[in-house]
Amino acid sequence: MNDSDTICALATAPGGALGIIRVSGHQSLEVLSHIFIKDLTQANPNTIHYGHIKHGTEIIDEVMVSVFRAPHSYTGEDSAEISCHGSRYILNKVLELLIQQGCRMARPGEYTQRAYLNGKMDLSQAEAVADLIASTNRATHQIAMNQLRGGISTKLAQLREQLLKLTSLLELELDFSDHEDLEFADRSELLELTKTIDKHITHLADSFETGQALKQGIPVAIVGKTNVGKSTLLNALLKEDRAIVSDIHGTTRDIIEDTIDIQGITFRFIDTAGIRQTTDEVEQIGITRTYAAIDKARIVLWLIDAEPAAEEIKEMQERCNDKSLIVIQNKIDLDSHHHFSSLIPHSTFLSISAKYGQGLDALETAIYQAANIPTLSDADVIVSNARHYDALVRAHESLNRVLEGMDQQLSGDLLSEDLRLTLDTLSEITGGQITPNEVLGNIFKNFCVGK
Amino acid sequence: MNDSDTICALATAPGGALGIIRVSGHQSLEVLSHIFIKDLTQANPNTIHYGHIKHGTEIIDEVMVSVFRAPHSYTGEDSAEISCHGSRYILNKVLELLIQQGCRMARPGEYTQRAYLNGKMDLSQAEAVADLIASTNRATHQIAMNQLRGGISTKLAQLREQLLKLTSLLELELDFSDHEDLEFADRSELLELTKTIDKHITHLADSFETGQALKQGIPVAIVGKTNVGKSTLLNALLKEDRAIVSDIHGTTRDIIEDTIDIQGITFRFIDTAGIRQTTDEVEQIGITRTYAAIDKARIVLWLIDAEPAAEEIKEMQERCNDKSLIVIQNKIDLDSHHHFSSLIPHSTFLSISAKYGQGLDALETAIYQAANIPTLSDADVIVSNARHYDALVRAHESLNRVLEGMDQQLSGDLLSEDLRLTLDTLSEITGGQITPNEVLGNIFKNFCVGK
Repeated sequence: MNDSDTICALATAPGGALGIIRVSGHQSLEVLSHIFIKDLTQANPNTIHYGHIKHGTEIIDEVMVSVFRAPHSYTGEDSAEISCHGSRYILNKVLELLIQQGCRMARPGEYTQRAYLNGKMDLSQAEAVADLIASTNRATHQIAMNQLRGGISTKLAQLREQLLKLTSLLELELDFSDHEDLEFADRSELLELTKTIDKHITHLADSFETGQALKQGIPVAIVGKTNVGKSTLLNALLKEDRAIVSDIHGTTRDIIEDTIDIQGITFRFIDTAGIRQTTDEVEQIGITRTYAAIDKARIVLWLIDAEPAAEEIKEMQERCNDKSLIVIQNKIDLDSHHHFSSLIPHSTFLSISAKYGQGLDALETAIYQAANIPTLSDADVIVSNARHYDALVRAHESLNRVLEGMDQQLSGDLLSEDLRLTLDTLSEITGGQITPNEVLGNIFKNFCVGK
Repeated sequence: MNDSDTICALATAPGGALGIIRVSGHQSLEVLSHIFIKDLTQANPNTIHYGHIKHGTEIIDEVMVSVFRAPHSYTGEDSAEISCHGSRYILNKVLELLIQQGCRMARPGEYTQRAYLNGKMDLSQAEAVADLIASTNRATHQIAMNQLRGGISTKLAQLREQLLKLTSLLELELDFSDHEDLEFADRSELLELTKTIDKHITHLADSFETGQALKQGIPVAIVGKTNVGKSTLLNALLKEDRAIVSDIHGTTRDIIEDTIDIQGITFRFIDTAGIRQTTDEVEQIGITRTYAAIDKARIVLWLIDAEPAAEEIKEMQERCNDKSLIVIQNKIDLDSHHHFSSLIPHSTFLSISAKYGQGLDALETAIYQAANIPTLSDADVIVSNARHYDALVRAHESLNRVLEGMDQQLSGDLLSEDLRLTLDTLSEITGGQITPNEVLGNIFKNFCVGK
């Protein structure tokens, strides 16, 4: 396993009309020329070549080969993409032939890892590639795209610049410490600068909660008695979510089931067993399950069709103490209904007919507002990566020690170590420092093969 | 729905590192230029362009766009392929933007249908595209590739040429029928020519049985008592089947489970319940199931570890009357075993140890031979398409009426109608005649979207 090997992998999922095989490394075009009808070693960059892949006299496929030349390729190396018919036999065979000619199978994320090692992108951008591929809605897409285009990198570069300024000011103080009459670095100014930097770091670290919520989907529980209309409501909400791609290819329904995108944010619905009123024992199981669902949720939709007892209200209120509670009166289409007014303080109250779709738009708006997600602009940097969050927390900790040291009037040389540590910790995020292989391995192992 | 619309579709399966969106039609590059960072309307053919897809100020993805120009494209029209990051959100969004700009979603097989309508390939070649994508082993791949490269078309062109010669000779006979002394078409020569053509048509039609067996996999039943080692044998055989693509992407195991490729041919193993010797009733169910499996099989592997009773042998022999029976003595690794000699006439007998892999190579060879598949060379035309088979059978029928007519000394004008029908019927296969929309619809509806 060597970074100078020429590597190959299937870059698309198997099963489509087309399958793309990627080849990268300095021998890409030489290797390919052995199995392609034409010699590609002299091919111009960014050109497409039609012909067939052959194995002796056997024709394996009629393909299009796209040729890329170092350094103007994804990996920064000479590389090629073979667009084959999407047959498992053909794709296997072409990979086999490439391996026979000296390629090896790429590890997960190895193309992107090479792009990083060849200076095509920094580490946070490389990680954004995986997030971008995994993105399923506008919010996660926007976070990943911002990160890919250097959003976090730019922000961190600004912070590092300020930290370097702080360091140099402290070093000046150090160099001239013999001259007690000179005051190059006003401590109160340094303190202010340090606090500002820490505020930015903390702000970034704090965005991780939002980033995580957006990435994983915001958990919502629909609770209520049996027959109050929970399934009808869920189905009515799900109907809004139309995915062209998944419609065509019959993506497994399980994957998108019970998640709803509202204004570009994914809400993940937690299944709750209805509270059945048969015997006390069974009811107790239902209540236990519902409470478990509530505990996992950030938003609780309490669906009712009759006025709940005071005791029930009190219990729900206590349960939802740290959550957003939306009380929904269903079945307003029935003649027998009578409107309630709001029942619980600090909760939202809505009236709907899940069956006839009345009040659903207002409900979606209420759910979106209950999520309390800050409006994201293209320029906003949201940390959604646990590795970045961890580094930011550690950077905040070491910078806090600098602040404490300043408070204790420690000298510059005692502070500079923690300042250096803060700088190094922030550098971990973009990989500006030499990144240990172990860390790289951990980052890229979660990529898909072919990227 | 118009053939001059500009169409778009996802050409790869969702879920990979990359997703390819195909755009085809005379407005492809204009439409694309509205959502791409660069104007592509003047782009050179077969060139690749890096940039981003945008929606207003929002950046949807960083992509590579491959540009193709009519008539040198797959469809014969101006077209483009957008290589995106394989995120469901991104792929949906790009398709949405294309549709907003005036594209419509392509119907299944519409790219290939356009390739046919624009004279890039004939109908049998178009059908080969779907077969090629579906091919999972060397045999089905070879049949589809041969067909794609015009194997059937060439063969049919030869037959049509001979039929036209026959027709013109008969027409000459007709034109000069007043001159009884002239004999332009010697009837015995015409009869010989007709018989030769019919032999070729029949030969092609007969190849359909092989074609079907290769396409669907040759059914094999492993039968035998419980604990005789059926599962061990099946697992030992399955181990030989290594698919790079399916290994990586975790293709659903069900799909490749219980099929084994031997020398490029797929054998499909039919699950058989072991014959359990508990009570008579249960045993009877086991036997019934096993017999059902045998009925569906073309090859029966009867696994034994002790000498069967004469009655069992007689029963199995009768059951496998029209099948290839391979009797396999398992567990030859055990000290307690003693070798039997062949038990049943007209059956193959082998000794193996499924547990230690002894004798498996010989068994695979025996299974391959039992399938009785003619060795295929690259030049062999195998009909694997039911539509082609149907046309060949009808062509044979009408040509047979010509032969009967000749036998009854009917005049040329009475024969020429059936000759013309034979010609037209063969033309249906390649679509040389104007093919009704209904037929085209039936052919292309089974394609995947994006091809």
